[in-house]
Amino acid sequence: MFTHVACFRWVEGTDPADVDAITAALRRLPGVIPEIREYRCGPDAGLAEGNFEYSVVATFDGRDDYSVYASHPVHRQVISDLIRPRLAARVAVQFES
Amino acid sequence: MFTHVACFRWVEGTDPADVDAITAALRRLPGVIPEIREYRCGPDAGLAEGNFEYSVVATFDGRDDYSVYASHPVHRQVISDLIRPRLAARVAVQFES
Repeated sequence: MFTHVACFRWVEGTDPADVDAITAALRRLPGVIPEIREYRCGPDAGLAEGNFEYSVVATFDGRDDYSVYASHPVHRQVISDLIRPRLAARVAVQFES
Repeated sequence: MFTHVACFRWVEGTDPADVDAITAALRRLPGVIPEIREYRCGPDAGLAEGNFEYSVVATFDGRDDYSVYASHPVHRQVISDLIRPRLAARVAVQFES
């Protein structure tokens, strides 16, 4: 298995409705990119100070399938249209698991 | 379901054997903390520049079970003995999924 993790901070003043739109768009990706085995995303629950504000966890059979996801045009469009305009910081890791 | 994500950067010069010891210690936690539903961790695969160096993804039935994990003494000992001495940066998110 191969796991992709991304954590985001949004620019100040980001509308929660815009974050909901990001969640809705991301949750459509498993229906579009069959290489995705499992997909979870959502806003931070607010339990710990200093946390980032949003995370995506995606699972694949291997790194090649992750690469299909990473470069898929529908995914890239979600990033360019919805995520990047609101992005203050992003941290990511991919790992064998 | 409730997902915890943490991403780490290590201090420069961290020995890969020390990271292997962290992985081994973390992978023992599901045997010690029955509230953990699923647990994955490992070093970054090196596919993308700017990534953090390590990640943990843990899944729970709900936030209360996450709190048991977060404060569990065996987990806290792994953090204090193995992780914190090598930690340069940490980013975390917990989210309903």
